[in-house]
Amino acid sequence: MDIKPLLSHIELELQKQVSRLDAPRTKPFHEMLTYHMGWAGEGAGPEATGKRIRPLMLLLCTSACGADWQSALPASAAVELVHNFSLVHDDIQDNSDKRRGRPTTWVKWGAPMAINVGDALFVISNQAIIDLKENYPAEIVVKAAEILHNTCLELTQGQFLDMSYEERTDLTVEDYWPMTAGKTAALLSACCYIGSLLGGADDGRQEAYRSFGHYLGLAFQVQDDILGIWGDETLTGKSAASDLIEHKNSLPVLAGLSANGRFAARWKQGAIQRNEVEEVARFLASEGGYETAMDAAKQMTDLALMSLRAADPQGEAGEALSELADKLLQRNQ
Amino acid sequence: MDIKPLLSHIELELQKQVSRLDAPRTKPFHEMLTYHMGWAGEGAGPEATGKRIRPLMLLLCTSACGADWQSALPASAAVELVHNFSLVHDDIQDNSDKRRGRPTTWVKWGAPMAINVGDALFVISNQAIIDLKENYPAEIVVKAAEILHNTCLELTQGQFLDMSYEERTDLTVEDYWPMTAGKTAALLSACCYIGSLLGGADDGRQEAYRSFGHYLGLAFQVQDDILGIWGDETLTGKSAASDLIEHKNSLPVLAGLSANGRFAARWKQGAIQRNEVEEVARFLASEGGYETAMDAAKQMTDLALMSLRAADPQGEAGEALSELADKLLQRNQ
Repeated sequence: MDIKPLLSHIELELQKQVSRLDAPRTKPFHEMLTYHMGWAGEGAGPEATGKRIRPLMLLLCTSACGADWQSALPASAAVELVHNFSLVHDDIQDNSDKRRGRPTTWVKWGAPMAINVGDALFVISNQAIIDLKENYPAEIVVKAAEILHNTCLELTQGQFLDMSYEERTDLTVEDYWPMTAGKTAALLSACCYIGSLLGGADDGRQEAYRSFGHYLGLAFQVQDDILGIWGDETLTGKSAASDLIEHKNSLPVLAGLSANGRFAARWKQGAIQRNEVEEVARFLASEGGYETAMDAAKQMTDLALMSLRAADPQGEAGEALSELADKLLQRNQ
Repeated sequence: MDIKPLLSHIELELQKQVSRLDAPRTKPFHEMLTYHMGWAGEGAGPEATGKRIRPLMLLLCTSACGADWQSALPASAAVELVHNFSLVHDDIQDNSDKRRGRPTTWVKWGAPMAINVGDALFVISNQAIIDLKENYPAEIVVKAAEILHNTCLELTQGQFLDMSYEERTDLTVEDYWPMTAGKTAALLSACCYIGSLLGGADDGRQEAYRSFGHYLGLAFQVQDDILGIWGDETLTGKSAASDLIEHKNSLPVLAGLSANGRFAARWKQGAIQRNEVEEVARFLASEGGYETAMDAAKQMTDLALMSLRAADPQGEAGEALSELADKLLQRNQ
């Protein structure tokens, strides 16, 4: 299946949704949102928009249930807007000055404005999900909205855990999963769940799709954690070992802390410098951090693929969904 | 009508909604929300919760349409949670360290956590409105959610205008209304609109209720602006003229700027000191700031009361609604 038409329709729907702010008095406000979304301002373009994985996933799930993906477009915009709302607030919270190679919203307009930009993206995601009422019965709209809101609560919970972990020194592998379930898996899970709901799947199949998205999210995050420490910079495009320098509580790190060896001792001493990174990464690998994460990635990948088989996606969209999953799980690289 | 049972049911519903975060891993997160809501931590109690005007208004509108207010409780929690989400983010944006006499959420836990607390209150408001599905047909739930989301977009627009005005020197009275419509009137309007929708009012009557809330919000804000400059401290409980010191773009100030006299000249020179306040307030009064605001307050109050008559609220709840409006419009003081 050619996913290009889906991607261009997603972009059009997103632009339509965000244009709610395109009024004379709020033009500069609208521009802040279109900048963040990657459509306007310095460095705008495909590099700046991100890959739109989440809305694509949602539409493929709808289509793989044998239904028309066009009707589900407002929901696809909703999940992408939720993702982007969380990025704008994340960047303020983490004090990050770059996002997809461009200055972050708070760097350009200050934190007070950026908080409001995130809030507006969030509001528009809520409006987008309600737009489903043009294409679906009200009961389905209410269920889709409920899934989306429950997911957003999980996002805030994951965000809370992530921030609270920064001050903790007693973290173990057990602390990893609830954080990652909230921060990464919840929204991917919602994409597949809502996608199959709008595709007309029965409850059992919706549950299989939901589960697929959940494990896919967990597997993806664990992979990303591994690449963040031992990745090949030329392949990943992000500086290897940057996660160590940023003191990120990734799965390998929490596994290394549980081992309580040389890695844990060094980690607890504070910020890791660029010139130590190789040695610290070696400590971590020799003390089980790499193996634990690889095992977990395999386990989550297996669970994702098992759920996908249970969901039994149909037709070309089903194949495209499997390909997208393979790509996210880096099984082709 | 005795409003005490309504207020205690509102509080219970709010607590139930917020308890979604009351889980072992997120207990400290839950505590941040219960602190802000006025239920826990230093200074907790009736003084700290605020008056719950918005949810009360919503329930009175439902009841004044002849319907059972208990069924509308989740919606009343939703509007109060939206209000509180905006307060938490406002306090960060305005760098305010006190709210209802207590340290603000960001002062206690830092801005990153406070952004997330606001986000969570917002998410829970969305979940609360969906809870209406237990008591109403899905079509009504969708319409209530749509009103709430449209209102939230107006809130972010009002917030944008308010922040962008801080850097402008060319403001006139014309700039006041869109900001105030978003920041104050939109949510009060939504309370009356949703309240009457859940009360089973027909479209025309819903529109009258919506309009009542809108003008009530505008009238209330203009009154508040007047009191913020010429109010009697012993009556208002807030320092008179504090709005001048805080350089707030209130209606009297924008009217004074349009007059372009001594007040405008002084205002454009920057921060007004405590010892100048009386003189600057006198300039402003003599250059039309007081009169313009008083005229506008009267006009908006008349429009509010005319809309209320058109809405024709019934029974004891209708009387209580009129009393509440009188109280907000300070017509008894």
